[in-house]
Amino acid sequence: MIELYDDERLDYLLNEDMRIIQSPSVFAFSLDAVLLAKFAYMPIQKGHIVDLCTGNGVIPLLLSKRTKGKIIGVEIQDRLYDMARRSVQYNELEEQIELIHGDINDMPQQLGYSKYDVVTCNPPYFPTISEEEMNKNRHLAIARHEIYCTLEDVVKVSSQLLKQGGKAAFVHRPSRLLDIVTLMRQYRLEPKRLRFVYPKIGKEANTILIEGIKDGNPDLKILPPLIVYSDDNEYTDEVKQILYGTLQ
Amino acid sequence: MIELYDDERLDYLLNEDMRIIQSPSVFAFSLDAVLLAKFAYMPIQKGHIVDLCTGNGVIPLLLSKRTKGKIIGVEIQDRLYDMARRSVQYNELEEQIELIHGDINDMPQQLGYSKYDVVTCNPPYFPTISEEEMNKNRHLAIARHEIYCTLEDVVKVSSQLLKQGGKAAFVHRPSRLLDIVTLMRQYRLEPKRLRFVYPKIGKEANTILIEGIKDGNPDLKILPPLIVYSDDNEYTDEVKQILYGTLQ
Repeated sequence: MIELYDDERLDYLLNEDMRIIQSPSVFAFSLDAVLLAKFAYMPIQKGHIVDLCTGNGVIPLLLSKRTKGKIIGVEIQDRLYDMARRSVQYNELEEQIELIHGDINDMPQQLGYSKYDVVTCNPPYFPTISEEEMNKNRHLAIARHEIYCTLEDVVKVSSQLLKQGGKAAFVHRPSRLLDIVTLMRQYRLEPKRLRFVYPKIGKEANTILIEGIKDGNPDLKILPPLIVYSDDNEYTDEVKQILYGTLQ
Repeated sequence: MIELYDDERLDYLLNEDMRIIQSPSVFAFSLDAVLLAKFAYMPIQKGHIVDLCTGNGVIPLLLSKRTKGKIIGVEIQDRLYDMARRSVQYNELEEQIELIHGDINDMPQQLGYSKYDVVTCNPPYFPTISEEEMNKNRHLAIARHEIYCTLEDVVKVSSQLLKQGGKAAFVHRPSRLLDIVTLMRQYRLEPKRLRFVYPKIGKEANTILIEGIKDGNPDLKILPPLIVYSDDNEYTDEVKQILYGTLQ
């Protein structure tokens, strides 16, 4: 039993394993979130994980398949927080996933400093916004633009939440790569794994996945390229496995 | 007519178009140099180009196929400088390519500040060296390790030589990516094009190609992945074209 409002749908996640509430006019998760949920390091048996800017909770839901640890999702928009809460309930994951309706900048104070093993975040990508865009759809605008949290907020808060040796994983656009690595080093998150996502083999990367370790030693690896579509415009085997296979 | 010393060979470059003096015990060019010569922006009709740490002159020789501009190669080891000089002579390119035997750190003073359109460099990759390695082969050690020039020297000198809007292109190892981008920004070379070279589709990148513009605006593009070998361990078509085709 689940209540759906307005244009909300109950979509499948990972084939038919889980379901998630989405709404075209409020929030629907992207491939980027799924890629991040697969890319991030996860402790298998236990641990404490925080997902910032969690939206409709897609990342905590996916991570619950990879870890028995406790996962906290933080979302500032009450409408999205409520969608996430109902999806967690529907999948009977209330024991593992806790959702918090709040500002990520308040989380170190609220959740504690240096206590977490992993922080993930698929943040808003775009720095600026026109008033017109903001007025057109406030929910989507807040999810996509740095209105309530900037990239610097995300990196700073992640670092504050993490233990020494804890890991932060982010997904973003290549145009912000230099900002991200500069901010990560500034806030003691040493970049260790960087993966570029290319829509096709002959195309420029359109997404980056990056993981840093709090107070880690400099030693950056560029992981194998992640190609989304093959030449015949089908998802590649790796992406099919990430989208429909079991996350492991 | 050309004089060859010791174990020197006269190898082909770009199929049978050009020849270059190499020696297994002194210096032989790598795929990286060829990739950089193809990656770097080149003005076609005219311009002034400097190749730092030019070794046996492979990059100036290759660039001469892509531009009618004047190319200067700078090499600190007299034995390599002499190999480069003789190769330029053999290919009858003395009008276009000038070789300088000197320290790159003296070049802004010697060649002039803010006068060049493009600077390229395939620098020594490794920061440290054991005394044993240094004693075993001094020529190779100097070419591979930051003995006479550090990465910071390369970036600083490149910036000093370049006009505003001029372009610097470097090849290096992924582990130094963060150092390079940090140094480039510090010396006013804004990174604009970054390309990762993966030995195979499922492997980590082992080489990066990066180009920056002096006083450029931030706007980094991650170019399509460059895959060296196909699954059957043959060079991919793109690499065959770069190695044996006409550089254009």
